[in-house]
Amino acid sequence: MGTADRLVESTRELLWERGYTATSPRAIQERAGAGQGSMYHHFRGKPDLAAEAIRRTAAELRTAAEASLNGPGDAVERITAYLHRSRDVLKGCPIGRLAQDPGIVDDPVLREPLDTTFTWLRGRLAELLAEDVPAVDAGATAATIVATLQGGYVLARAAGSTEPFEQAVAGVLGLLSLATGKA
Amino acid sequence: MGTADRLVESTRELLWERGYTATSPRAIQERAGAGQGSMYHHFRGKPDLAAEAIRRTAAELRTAAEASLNGPGDAVERITAYLHRSRDVLKGCPIGRLAQDPGIVDDPVLREPLDTTFTWLRGRLAELLAEDVPAVDAGATAATIVATLQGGYVLARAAGSTEPFEQAVAGVLGLLSLATGKA
Repeated sequence: MGTADRLVESTRELLWERGYTATSPRAIQERAGAGQGSMYHHFRGKPDLAAEAIRRTAAELRTAAEASLNGPGDAVERITAYLHRSRDVLKGCPIGRLAQDPGIVDDPVLREPLDTTFTWLRGRLAELLAEDVPAVDAGATAATIVATLQGGYVLARAAGSTEPFEQAVAGVLGLLSLATGKA
Repeated sequence: MGTADRLVESTRELLWERGYTATSPRAIQERAGAGQGSMYHHFRGKPDLAAEAIRRTAAELRTAAEASLNGPGDAVERITAYLHRSRDVLKGCPIGRLAQDPGIVDDPVLREPLDTTFTWLRGRLAELLAEDVPAVDAGATAATIVATLQGGYVLARAAGSTEPFEQAVAGVLGLLSLATGKA
């Protein structure tokens, strides 16, 4: 891996472990085994490096979501597969957690990949719902599903247990199932 | 207001503005206009002071939730009133946001009021649902409602707009309305 890639991967790790505000340029350089001159040769600074790190994380999250949402089955089966895919619940969502960091949400360039990711996800879920669950408002219900995931992480971290996440997911799937008349 | 109260209120403000990890004992003392000796006379240190600050915030949140949830109407009407009550959406939930702070979730004493608040809220919502919406799993659906709120804040902060929060709330109320057969 080249130095630029090592710097980006180190930034991704540190964003996940400590968040943006608490990550110093020096910590990134140390983790990547790169000098200050090398970092500023490849990137304008910490915000520029973080923007690239967040874009990579967002792209991975989208690829993983697409694998479930483009899979076999009807809308509710695909959404169920997406909600049930394996997650490190107590660590939270690598994108959603960044929305709590004032250093991210106050910087339009850093906030943009978060907004784009969630907007895409809501749109994709709404397409599926519009096809197969005509009884619900597809756009609003898609927002509820994404919010249930993100809020499930918050409740799990508050509880120190995955139980609230699992209950929240079971609850929204139960409501969807009633809405499709399959209950 | 006495010095101890001023210290607690200053800690509450700083937790809301900066979070726990980024708040120094010195910043609390300056905000409260209190000296270091005075702070350590009243509290064992920053964790002790933060625990009291979080307990007060949690108590306020519970009182505000009870006002809607014990109000007039059936379960869905009360839950609708609760979800629609006025909130500073882009700032997030003063309790939920703390669940993203590693300094809070890694300390059982500081995490406890978060867990207690969400457990109480889920229990109260489940009671209401069990009375009036027998078609749903009351416990799971209650977790979904609380997760929708918490995740709605996350999506709103990521978008820099209250729109995703409003959509997520509309979506969960639409699903509940279908489940009660009132749609």
